[in-house]
Amino acid sequence: MSKIKCLSNSERAELLKTIPDWEYDEEQKGIVTTYQFNDFTTAFGFMTSVAILSEKADHHPEWFNVYNKVEILLTTHDAGGLSIRDIELARAIDAL
Amino acid sequence: MSKIKCLSNSERAELLKTIPDWEYDEEQKGIVTTYQFNDFTTAFGFMTSVAILSEKADHHPEWFNVYNKVEILLTTHDAGGLSIRDIELARAIDAL
Repeated sequence: MSKIKCLSNSERAELLKTIPDWEYDEEQKGIVTTYQFNDFTTAFGFMTSVAILSEKADHHPEWFNVYNKVEILLTTHDAGGLSIRDIELARAIDAL
Repeated sequence: MSKIKCLSNSERAELLKTIPDWEYDEEQKGIVTTYQFNDFTTAFGFMTSVAILSEKADHHPEWFNVYNKVEILLTTHDAGGLSIRDIELARAIDAL
């Protein structure tokens, strides 16, 4: 597999427009969002779906959950920042 | 349901001895631990078990996952700190 590349600033700006619920976090060099659900069971059900599609994509989130809230950070450590894989996973998550 | 109480310092010290993998975090007023697994699927399988027993106990963790690592914080917001419910949940998690 060829090494995955970081997006350029202009690529990033264009692609971020396609995922309006996510924003770029300069410090963490990734995109972040927060989902809120009615309760823990619904939140964890969502996490389970994300887990399965992350594993299929072989690209995993860094995420935090407390009760009905799920915070997600997507970044590509192999690329040292944001890559197209993060954008693709964000789209797949949004589509759930 | 009567309001759940914070543990006293001496109660806490005694009970912490029963869950050696956990330590008290003064700032977060809760107990914390980190589990490490072979891969994401195993880590998330563990999280699924924790989710089910948390929901049954009606007491939920604050937790962070990245790939094979799961960090857990247990605290009781209703009590403003550590309660017996956190100790019980920690024991149940350790027993998985």
